[in-house]
Amino acid sequence: MSYKLRCISCGAIYDPDEVEYTCPKCGPRKGTLEVVFNYDEIRVSREEFSPERDMFQFEKLLPLPKNYYKVPLRVGGTPLYDFPRVAEKLGVNRFLVKYDGVNPTASYKDRASALAIAKATEKGYETIYAASTGNAASSLAGLTASTPHLKSVIFVPAKAPRPKIVQIKVFGATLVPIDGSYDQAFDISMKIGDKMGWYSRNSAINPYLLEGKKTGAMEIAVQMGYKVPDYVLVGVGDGTVISGLYKGFYDMYKVGLIDEIPKIIGVQAEGADAVKRVFDKGEPFEPIDMEANTIADSISVGKPRDVIKACKYVKASGGFYVSVSDEEIIDAQIELASEMGVFAEPAGSAPYAGLKKLVESRRLGKDDTVAIVVTGNGLKDIRALEKRFEIVPVPPDEEKVLEYLQKSV
Amino acid sequence: MSYKLRCISCGAIYDPDEVEYTCPKCGPRKGTLEVVFNYDEIRVSREEFSPERDMFQFEKLLPLPKNYYKVPLRVGGTPLYDFPRVAEKLGVNRFLVKYDGVNPTASYKDRASALAIAKATEKGYETIYAASTGNAASSLAGLTASTPHLKSVIFVPAKAPRPKIVQIKVFGATLVPIDGSYDQAFDISMKIGDKMGWYSRNSAINPYLLEGKKTGAMEIAVQMGYKVPDYVLVGVGDGTVISGLYKGFYDMYKVGLIDEIPKIIGVQAEGADAVKRVFDKGEPFEPIDMEANTIADSISVGKPRDVIKACKYVKASGGFYVSVSDEEIIDAQIELASEMGVFAEPAGSAPYAGLKKLVESRRLGKDDTVAIVVTGNGLKDIRALEKRFEIVPVPPDEEKVLEYLQKSV
Repeated sequence: MSYKLRCISCGAIYDPDEVEYTCPKCGPRKGTLEVVFNYDEIRVSREEFSPERDMFQFEKLLPLPKNYYKVPLRVGGTPLYDFPRVAEKLGVNRFLVKYDGVNPTASYKDRASALAIAKATEKGYETIYAASTGNAASSLAGLTASTPHLKSVIFVPAKAPRPKIVQIKVFGATLVPIDGSYDQAFDISMKIGDKMGWYSRNSAINPYLLEGKKTGAMEIAVQMGYKVPDYVLVGVGDGTVISGLYKGFYDMYKVGLIDEIPKIIGVQAEGADAVKRVFDKGEPFEPIDMEANTIADSISVGKPRDVIKACKYVKASGGFYVSVSDEEIIDAQIELASEMGVFAEPAGSAPYAGLKKLVESRRLGKDDTVAIVVTGNGLKDIRALEKRFEIVPVPPDEEKVLEYLQKSV
Repeated sequence: MSYKLRCISCGAIYDPDEVEYTCPKCGPRKGTLEVVFNYDEIRVSREEFSPERDMFQFEKLLPLPKNYYKVPLRVGGTPLYDFPRVAEKLGVNRFLVKYDGVNPTASYKDRASALAIAKATEKGYETIYAASTGNAASSLAGLTASTPHLKSVIFVPAKAPRPKIVQIKVFGATLVPIDGSYDQAFDISMKIGDKMGWYSRNSAINPYLLEGKKTGAMEIAVQMGYKVPDYVLVGVGDGTVISGLYKGFYDMYKVGLIDEIPKIIGVQAEGADAVKRVFDKGEPFEPIDMEANTIADSISVGKPRDVIKACKYVKASGGFYVSVSDEEIIDAQIELASEMGVFAEPAGSAPYAGLKKLVESRRLGKDDTVAIVVTGNGLKDIRALEKRFEIVPVPPDEEKVLEYLQKSV
């Protein structure tokens, strides 16, 4: 499909062949690009989409050539759960959970990786690289493993959760475990990737990642019969997932598939709330940096790379940002699991923590239909929970077990 | 739907109201029950099934009442992947992977839990219990969490992988971590469950688990356009998953949806190959016990509970059993991940190890279409891989990183 690239800051328009990543005038931090379509050219109808099919069912709304490369693993088509009992308890009209823990590598990031791999293939690259807090990395490694014509090189903070590191290694990627923060891993990856001439799957820098990430929003719309929620909440690190959600609804609105765009609410960890701070200061949005410190490793970002877009889009939607403590995140994680059977990693639990906070302070209430996006599977990082749950073995003896049960039930 | 229960050993037929678990004459070890339908009563057509919908699309072929309880989480509808490049490398006609790592709690066991929960609800129980090597436990805990009218009590060996234990705890189940083997946890759970009057979701004992597990086979048939593979391989512990696979194809064959039943091949770990031993000794199949010792915790079973069925069904299909070493299992795990992007836990990798062995010894070859069933997500047990992959952090310095890359690529 034909499309252009537009700078989120200065509005300059480029042909896709003209620039690879960001606006040359505004630089990589402020000059991230949007993919702009000519919506009049796009012919789609509600009937052609299914609540179960993978993300490439939206190919007519993706910036891909006719014969694009599609990874063999099934990405997207994740479930949207409706929990009326929880809605009642919270005091909202309806409560839904989009669960992306069942993607091939168990996170939302697979949507972006699938698109980046299609693009790398189209452009003829042989190596693709990424810096990541962990999920984008294991996602790129996994989807590249299923793609014989591409190799991947992955930069992560060496202290990323073990399961994510093991995923990257077992998928056969070249892993560069950086002795430092995600922000440091990001910066060094850019230097090396540039020098080596590799394709970048770095958040925000590559405008197509967001186009992959938008498919989660499109699925929500289809799964709700095109009556979108009033609010959609999601955890925010770099700001690309939240921007992608807005863009997904926006594109669907522009082609007439939905009648309105939900208000998008970004939820950040208190210890890594740079996007919220920028948003709260107001326009013109100016990036700030901080030292990130949160248990939710996937959103532990101090130098958010897509902050301008994440602020502009949320503002355009009528939404806002809220922050939650690590304690609230873990409580939310336990509640999601024990009351709904939804196992989310800490970053994926943040939006539920945010929702609880907003309901308590009556910013959201009984008229509101609310969806949260759970971006990663709880199996990806069990460290915080391990500390909470102490296991004391019981001998296989009837009396001892009965005693134990009396104490625990 | 109306159905009867039949003893796998003596063939006695019971009404579902007459017996709860096993044949009173043959006892719990040899007297496991089969669900028997009157196939003439069942009206189904190929057109009504989809390659993407959840397991309850097969409700007409499940022993459930009209208004059965369906867990709110999406179980089944997992992808079947086709890897022509791997088929070529292996030297088989076609190679497919049924990936059940994307079920709600990341294992095949969710299919059985969903059915057990429907049955517990139908029968009016308030508590359901299970003994498990880990996956059935976390599955029951997770699906029960989404089911407010049921509580779960879970018996596992205390040395089960941490991620599985954490899942059980975070889902809010009552966990009884037994200081002993799975086989000991199983035996003590039966005593306690019986005493307390809880519903049993114990492998083999409960005839309905297999009916849930059969839906994986039915999905394979639908996903292949009703042209089933020549061989289906799966890892075997207690023997219920493999029996379920056979039953799924058998039911579809009996109602005319498919024209033949694939040969079913069971793959066991060398250190826990009791079913294979019983099978190889031949009929009449006599259960044996052994001390289980394998890295593949989900199939680390020394006292298999569904051994008679697992032998009879495999024999009826024209299949057989093969065993593989732990080393071969881990190699298979790495190959599945690095060449296909499929992350399987050790037990889920066993069938691929078995396939490689059978191809090497030319028991399977170029005319054969082969599917393997990956029963659990690799994130559920990363211990073996952690030992293989050593991580040495690199400073965020351009020269140091380039040096590191030269050594690792």
